[in-house]
Amino acid sequence: MTSPRFDTLLITGAAGRLGTELRRGLAPLARRLRLTDVAEIADLQPNEDAIICDLSDEAAMLRATDGVDAIIHFGGIALEAGWEDILNANIRGSYNVYEGARKNGVPRIVYASSVHAIGYHRLEDQIDTNAPHRPDGLYGLSKCFVEDLGRLYWDKFGIETAALRIFSSFPEPADRRMLWSWLSFADCVRLVTAALTAPRVGFTLSFGISDNAVKPVDNRLAGHLGYHPQDNTEGFRAGVEAKVPVPDPKAPSVQCLGGWFVDLGHPDDGAAK
Amino acid sequence: MTSPRFDTLLITGAAGRLGTELRRGLAPLARRLRLTDVAEIADLQPNEDAIICDLSDEAAMLRATDGVDAIIHFGGIALEAGWEDILNANIRGSYNVYEGARKNGVPRIVYASSVHAIGYHRLEDQIDTNAPHRPDGLYGLSKCFVEDLGRLYWDKFGIETAALRIFSSFPEPADRRMLWSWLSFADCVRLVTAALTAPRVGFTLSFGISDNAVKPVDNRLAGHLGYHPQDNTEGFRAGVEAKVPVPDPKAPSVQCLGGWFVDLGHPDDGAAK
Amino acid sequence: MTSPRFDTLLITGAAGRLGTELRRGLAPLARRLRLTDVAEIADLQPNEDAIICDLSDEAAMLRATDGVDAIIHFGGIALEAGWEDILNANIRGSYNVYEGARKNGVPRIVYASSVHAIGYHRLEDQIDTNAPHRPDGLYGLSKCFVEDLGRLYWDKFGIETAALRIFSSFPEPADRRMLWSWLSFADCVRLVTAALTAPRVGFTLSFGISDNAVKPVDNRLAGHLGYHPQDNTEGFRAGVEAKVPVPDPKAPSVQCLGGWFVDLGHPDDGAAK
Amino acid sequence: MTSPRFDTLLITGAAGRLGTELRRGLAPLARRLRLTDVAEIADLQPNEDAIICDLSDEAAMLRATDGVDAIIHFGGIALEAGWEDILNANIRGSYNVYEGARKNGVPRIVYASSVHAIGYHRLEDQIDTNAPHRPDGLYGLSKCFVEDLGRLYWDKFGIETAALRIFSSFPEPADRRMLWSWLSFADCVRLVTAALTAPRVGFTLSFGISDNAVKPVDNRLAGHLGYHPQDNTEGFRAGVEAKVPVPDPKAPSVQCLGGWFVDLGHPDDGAAK
Amino acid sequence: MTSPRFDTLLITGAAGRLGTELRRGLAPLARRLRLTDVAEIADLQPNEDAIICDLSDEAAMLRATDGVDAIIHFGGIALEAGWEDILNANIRGSYNVYEGARKNGVPRIVYASSVHAIGYHRLEDQIDTNAPHRPDGLYGLSKCFVEDLGRLYWDKFGIETAALRIFSSFPEPADRRMLWSWLSFADCVRLVTAALTAPRVGFTLSFGISDNAVKPVDNRLAGHLGYHPQDNTEGFRAGVEAKVPVPDPKAPSVQCLGGWFVDLGHPDDGAAK
Amino acid sequence: MTSPRFDTLLITGAAGRLGTELRRGLAPLARRLRLTDVAEIADLQPNEDAIICDLSDEAAMLRATDGVDAIIHFGGIALEAGWEDILNANIRGSYNVYEGARKNGVPRIVYASSVHAIGYHRLEDQIDTNAPHRPDGLYGLSKCFVEDLGRLYWDKFGIETAALRIFSSFPEPADRRMLWSWLSFADCVRLVTAALTAPRVGFTLSFGISDNAVKPVDNRLAGHLGYHPQDNTEGFRAGVEAKVPVPDPKAPSVQCLGGWFVDLGHPDDGAAK
Repeated sequence: MTSPRFDTLLITGAAGRLGTELRRGLAPLARRLRLTDVAEIADLQPNEDAIICDLSDEAAMLRATDGVDAIIHFGGIALEAGWEDILNANIRGSYNVYEGARKNGVPRIVYASSVHAIGYHRLEDQIDTNAPHRPDGLYGLSKCFVEDLGRLYWDKFGIETAALRIFSSFPEPADRRMLWSWLSFADCVRLVTAALTAPRVGFTLSFGISDNAVKPVDNRLAGHLGYHPQDNTEGFRAGVEAKVPVPDPKAPSVQCLGGWFVDLGHPDDGAAK
Repeated sequence: MTSPRFDTLLITGAAGRLGTELRRGLAPLARRLRLTDVAEIADLQPNEDAIICDLSDEAAMLRATDGVDAIIHFGGIALEAGWEDILNANIRGSYNVYEGARKNGVPRIVYASSVHAIGYHRLEDQIDTNAPHRPDGLYGLSKCFVEDLGRLYWDKFGIETAALRIFSSFPEPADRRMLWSWLSFADCVRLVTAALTAPRVGFTLSFGISDNAVKPVDNRLAGHLGYHPQDNTEGFRAGVEAKVPVPDPKAPSVQCLGGWFVDLGHPDDGAAK
Repeated sequence: MTSPRFDTLLITGAAGRLGTELRRGLAPLARRLRLTDVAEIADLQPNEDAIICDLSDEAAMLRATDGVDAIIHFGGIALEAGWEDILNANIRGSYNVYEGARKNGVPRIVYASSVHAIGYHRLEDQIDTNAPHRPDGLYGLSKCFVEDLGRLYWDKFGIETAALRIFSSFPEPADRRMLWSWLSFADCVRLVTAALTAPRVGFTLSFGISDNAVKPVDNRLAGHLGYHPQDNTEGFRAGVEAKVPVPDPKAPSVQCLGGWFVDLGHPDDGAAK
Repeated sequence: MTSPRFDTLLITGAAGRLGTELRRGLAPLARRLRLTDVAEIADLQPNEDAIICDLSDEAAMLRATDGVDAIIHFGGIALEAGWEDILNANIRGSYNVYEGARKNGVPRIVYASSVHAIGYHRLEDQIDTNAPHRPDGLYGLSKCFVEDLGRLYWDKFGIETAALRIFSSFPEPADRRMLWSWLSFADCVRLVTAALTAPRVGFTLSFGISDNAVKPVDNRLAGHLGYHPQDNTEGFRAGVEAKVPVPDPKAPSVQCLGGWFVDLGHPDDGAAK
Repeated sequence: MTSPRFDTLLITGAAGRLGTELRRGLAPLARRLRLTDVAEIADLQPNEDAIICDLSDEAAMLRATDGVDAIIHFGGIALEAGWEDILNANIRGSYNVYEGARKNGVPRIVYASSVHAIGYHRLEDQIDTNAPHRPDGLYGLSKCFVEDLGRLYWDKFGIETAALRIFSSFPEPADRRMLWSWLSFADCVRLVTAALTAPRVGFTLSFGISDNAVKPVDNRLAGHLGYHPQDNTEGFRAGVEAKVPVPDPKAPSVQCLGGWFVDLGHPDDGAAK
Repeated sequence: MTSPRFDTLLITGAAGRLGTELRRGLAPLARRLRLTDVAEIADLQPNEDAIICDLSDEAAMLRATDGVDAIIHFGGIALEAGWEDILNANIRGSYNVYEGARKNGVPRIVYASSVHAIGYHRLEDQIDTNAPHRPDGLYGLSKCFVEDLGRLYWDKFGIETAALRIFSSFPEPADRRMLWSWLSFADCVRLVTAALTAPRVGFTLSFGISDNAVKPVDNRLAGHLGYHPQDNTEGFRAGVEAKVPVPDPKAPSVQCLGGWFVDLGHPDDGAAK
């Protein structure tokens, strides 16, 4: 039997929806998984160590990143939210993660970026990962920030980042948009696994989406990650179409990659969260 | 049982080769199919209503487009032809279809454009749908016109158009060029279905070609239509190659997407039709 | 003294605003100028021959194009207009010009296309001449048609076309948009002269605009025409700005190249003409 | 005499090197200039109002942006600095400026971005403004953040931003790099003036550099701003070359746009500031 | 039974690793295979004729290319080597092959170019076949030369060339790089077959690589060759990963397409061969 | 008085047409000029040292490149010629120059490439320096080879090359093609000077052409060289046009950048030289 590729992997946001999936999915890749979250992490496994801490706690993140072989940074706020919350959890928090990596010599970070970093591009633009940022809210803006942070830490400090722009990763597609934006949990694990094991990452952006029939973006520039989705939404189509009315193709939330995020007002006006 | 997506669809050119296939193939999508053609439409089905009329008859087209949910515009002359015929059937006729859509509030048109709108591009150019028009005759020129008409009606009046550049849609590939240019009838139905049901079209161009081994164009910019061809010509290859000699790869008709259309002289000189 | 480069040049639309300028400006290039228009041509010069005829008169255009060395096709309707008028004057009329060129062996045509062939592109798109057509009305649509016609006649019949997308060619800039869209009459003559004398045209598109400070498009793909504008609007700026209020930068007519044409409704609804 | 284009303009960072130049240079454009800085503003003019406040003071910025027609946002830290300082002054501070603009309905912001947002691109890359961010430090990272912030506020709230990537704006070029990176104060004023008066900005990026002989970037995508530099470094060349040795063309600080910033270590390690 | 497509095919380098595979794989395509090599060709088959000769022998190559329908030029030195050897075998030798084709009227050449013609591009560059040459040694430089030679002979003499940039064609992947660079022998035969039978080649570049999970380049511009790899390295992954340590992703030999060739010094210094 | 930038510069081909101009033009840049040619060098100046030798003489070139600060490599055959001559003078000879640079640690080479490396591109293609090689003869093929050689020596050995594609550098334009392809001697000196003194070259391609009215190529990717032509052909136009007939714009020699080189047959058939 071969030994796992990594000794210790750190997963931030390990109590979250995707963090929970990654705990299961990445277990074979490492001898141990170190987990952090602000919330309690349920059902801890023998191969796992949990640290309850806030990303914005610089000292805690320095300790959490000590001695790990790679970081899967999925923590932080995963919804549109007010400025102070975004600033602390996503901007300051991610800075702490990268500083931890730098100070502890962690060579690679896999970051959960989001479609909301590019939410104002339209489906018919068929963008690739070289298209400029077009965040659709403060949440997306923080994702743009961390992508740029990752590029800086690659260019200046030689820490590799694969920034994965997750589209809609849920147990199953819940509305018509998800018929094209869905990323199955299994494909999410495949994508993170590819990003962790690819021979050469440098700074690479990749879209995170299953092999759905409607393809709104072009991921060819991430071919060297080796991600090949194996799921799609066709099995859910009839169900979704039966219960969700046909949307207006001219609505901004239909034409833009970001979906209903583009309709949100400013969160500090009380429009979100 | 779920109800069909559309109440009424209009198919122009419904008596033609592809119109006939679409009547069968699109039936599940709509409660009723309204059909127009200049020729008699054979074998009318209970779910179908036929209107015999000329596309160049403005009043008739206004009536034909009244109360439909989408238009599948496959009518008009489908071969190189003389100027007056092209002008009336394809240019004036398509204008009448779009005016009908505008006046009657029809939100989406699926248009049978053609490889002959881009016939002078070469295989090794590997064009995508952003490449400039290069029509290979008056027929192709009329297809360019209607593509631009569709873009205008989207930009100014908000009517969506998916313009499908049909390559060679016949029962089976008849010559060596069709080994790469063939669009099976089943794939043609798949393509039109995708264009009708895609969540967001705006103005979109798509190549219409099956999943043949030799791929002369790049259709990635139409990924949001969700068209996935399932047929190819490999099963016909041996037969075609046995009966059709190897062509000269330097002949313009071999190097250009438009095939033998590029060899045609001017139709008003009696060279075509 | 050297003899002029051309024996006979044909100018269509010679009674129009630009036609009148071109009669003066192109005189040194040819022994004789042949002029056509539907209107009477004022002040005929000794080096000029006038033919009053309609572009839609096929036989007349065949005669008018007989024995000329190049055609400067500036005739037709130069405003948004109803469909039948556009169809006859601009589509049918230009077809007659090209057929005349083909049958009479005229090697090069300089065509007055228009910004309205690309009117829905925005200033910040900074398009070049490879950008797709986006007409802003029926007039612009007819310009797109003739551009494609020119490309066909080059690809199939070897007749060269320089299609010049005139922006706003008036005696002086009349509003704030013209501060960037203006083409002085002298620069218009320079542009047509360049297109007539360039060593190699094939099918070439060029923007037609003076050397104004605000540059909304990129004309580098036409560098082989050798057009170098020498005028600009700075001398008119103070006057225009004093009398025309600052426009709303978010108005479609300000953001789009086509200006107020994008605000026009359908001409057959009585909105234009 | 014509009245100035704007009633009131706000300049942040008005006590700084460039702020001081802009006070003089922009005076003719507005009836009044409102100035903010953390430092005392010297030599206040009759047309000026000064507010001493910190950009990170949300309430102060809300008041400062009230009733202005446009904001020239040149405030914040203009050097590589530690994270907390950058976070407060540049990230939080700029957010406060944009929030002020949004709440007070200010339609346009001209932002002093920097070459350090793209500092790791190389001269021979000849990037244009569509190239991805490649910040060369925390300072550059904050500039990337504000560019994305500007794009968000345009896409979602309709506030226009011209983000000007200032290269090296000093009284005169001080080293060999500045022979190509220099932006004269007069050209800086020209650039800001163009950005304030351009008819249509949307979200536009522009490089800020004089008309120097060595041109390391391509600014054609900002042509609609109407910026035309009139200065260059040729008059300073002999002096600079006499006193500064020829650098090693392979040094990262010579090959990269960001110059010596790319050689800096992490500021929190004490390398900068 | 249909007769083979070609009467006689010439394979140079027929005694080599790939030449041996091609003898077997291409046999069904031709009535006879003519083989050349400097080395003895083992196990000659009834359908084969062998000529032992040096590519640098002009007269011998003229005879060898006489009367053949196409040339599969896989001969020459296939490793980094000293200048005189490369010059004679690969530069002079290939010139002799092309001159033979020209003088004998051979219409198409399939050339074994190499990843080492583009070896200094990086995986994350995701180049397509339009990317500039970046050879990683004298061997790669000679491959660049022959690609340009093929383009000249197409443009000037109308001889078609498909230049196939072979990545790593070995019995099985021997190291971690080959997990993405491997071209199985069966896929190599598929690629050469496609290049021989494609309807239109002109001058076409194609990457030669199997359908491996990690995809470092984009081959869409060669779609008209009709090459569809059917093998991949997944079945070898566990074995390779068990015996080869994880490489440093920052090593030039890991980041560059050329692999360890980029680490080689100059062969005339004794570093290679 | 400042000392010259370089101590010693080597000019190969110093007895040739351009070499002679460069001796004069580059004198102020260096304390001494070392000159090589196969022919006697006339009129030797006090600041010059001459070495009569053949580029194909490896030992001589090693000595000639010893102790120089940069090489201006303008030697070799400058016309279409037979294969053996091209191979020895241009391919082997340039290799010797680069090997001399490598062994002697010369940091930068300025190479006289040629329009004939890209001669089959057409004017209306408006290529930039990223366009693929399309040599128009054996001479052009050797220029492609040396460009690739330069790139290799940059990527592997860190020797910078500016490869200047000289169009037509003669005392004055001699035919109509030279009205756009002319490079005045003064501009040639400006271009070489820029390439020698640019802060950062790496491997850079630049077109070498004066500021003529008709611009057939786009040189923006070489902006960091700082070349600004100051001459043009307008003063010669009348004279050339009076004595040279208008060419056929459809002739390959008119449509292609390479001019009459594209009409040449194979030099070994006796067509050239």
